[in-house]
Amino acid sequence: MVNEKLVFVTNDDSYASKGFRAAIEVARRFGKVIAIAPNTVQSGKSQAITIYDMLRLREIEKSEDVEIYSLDGTPVDCVKFALDYFLKERKVDLMISGVNHGSNAATNVLYSGTMGAAIEAAFYNIPSIGLSNLDHSDDADFEASVEYGTRIVRSVLEGNLPRPLCLNVNIPILPVEQIKGIKVCRQTRGFWKDEFYKRTDPHGRDYYWVTGGFDNHEPEALDTDEWALKEGYVAVVPIQVDLTEYKLLDQLNGAL
Amino acid sequence: MVNEKLVFVTNDDSYASKGFRAAIEVARRFGKVIAIAPNTVQSGKSQAITIYDMLRLREIEKSEDVEIYSLDGTPVDCVKFALDYFLKERKVDLMISGVNHGSNAATNVLYSGTMGAAIEAAFYNIPSIGLSNLDHSDDADFEASVEYGTRIVRSVLEGNLPRPLCLNVNIPILPVEQIKGIKVCRQTRGFWKDEFYKRTDPHGRDYYWVTGGFDNHEPEALDTDEWALKEGYVAVVPIQVDLTEYKLLDQLNGAL
Repeated sequence: MVNEKLVFVTNDDSYASKGFRAAIEVARRFGKVIAIAPNTVQSGKSQAITIYDMLRLREIEKSEDVEIYSLDGTPVDCVKFALDYFLKERKVDLMISGVNHGSNAATNVLYSGTMGAAIEAAFYNIPSIGLSNLDHSDDADFEASVEYGTRIVRSVLEGNLPRPLCLNVNIPILPVEQIKGIKVCRQTRGFWKDEFYKRTDPHGRDYYWVTGGFDNHEPEALDTDEWALKEGYVAVVPIQVDLTEYKLLDQLNGAL
Repeated sequence: MVNEKLVFVTNDDSYASKGFRAAIEVARRFGKVIAIAPNTVQSGKSQAITIYDMLRLREIEKSEDVEIYSLDGTPVDCVKFALDYFLKERKVDLMISGVNHGSNAATNVLYSGTMGAAIEAAFYNIPSIGLSNLDHSDDADFEASVEYGTRIVRSVLEGNLPRPLCLNVNIPILPVEQIKGIKVCRQTRGFWKDEFYKRTDPHGRDYYWVTGGFDNHEPEALDTDEWALKEGYVAVVPIQVDLTEYKLLDQLNGAL
């Protein structure tokens, strides 16, 4: 390929996850792949960065077309290390984060290390695509993720979409042929309602585990990512990072 | 105080930081304080949550008016533990996060553990205020933070602002009397441009440190938090969490 692209890949489930290989498979269809993923599982790490600790890089495997490394840090650390240092002198054409084992739809996007990395890459004006499979099991089937990931990457590379561009793509747990297509959506409103379980260790000291479930605040809406996924579509939400609540500016000005 | 409030306090610099005591001092002016802060420094932890590790709680001090605990987790873990478990049966009137040692203005809000916690608390419909002092030194002067934090909390508790309400408050490095007042602002566009420094350990293995600086993409704008701080104002940005890039929905629909 004369015009082959340089694709940077990372994730939050670590370089050893099955979904990471699926993302590399997608990336490979468009050119050369440099993948730097966290050394350990970094699920739920959001856009966390490592400030007070050092980072180590380790080569996992290297061929002419695919180089894979692990870094002792967060997904965002991997992006910064790649784009500010490791690949600084090269033109990166695309960034793929994932494929995550588990949903990053709705407000999950806020906690997601996968999407934290995708958001970070978009700051470098590189189109970034976060791919997440709703199946969070270690052995999830990534066939539909690879198929739809490829379709979306192709549209992004061949289209005239503006930059920065960051997409949050979630894939339902369905065989490829049963997926109805792609829906462009908005982020569902809701939040994670958690529960804590108290346990006692053999030495008599208490500790806690957290678990929870997503509480959809707008189950009737027909334009959200949660709705699209429930209906059997791949959900795509374009992402921006201005957290300003503009509609409150005037009222706050009078109140403070 | 018959009508005294119940105020929950957390931060990201750990229960041992000077800024945490400043936040408790603000909270104390409005009622009873329950503070649960991370056991270790959690700067830059964004909205990270702990999924695959247990959490331990430790009592730091306890009086009739102020209870302080530490938790082995992130700032968001502290909020979830407090509001889903520890204080579940009680009505929490206000949440204060901070006072952070260092700026959380502009896109810092995305990486900030202080603001991650404040955003999380707002999900519980509790007005939440993240306070950050631009001075990141351990021994920063928090007089202005306490003064302006108190003013803003009073306005929030006495006003008719809608819920959810989450404020990102940043305080310039100036003596109280030189601060010009409060400006309600929008989040400055820009991003952190980082550099990596390579070192070699005594065993011959390489490692990396990251450092960087904020690159303001709109230094001429007169309505941003970076501008307000530079001009000597306390900057207040109201926060929302819908990351959807609405203006791209139509174009994406045609392209995917």
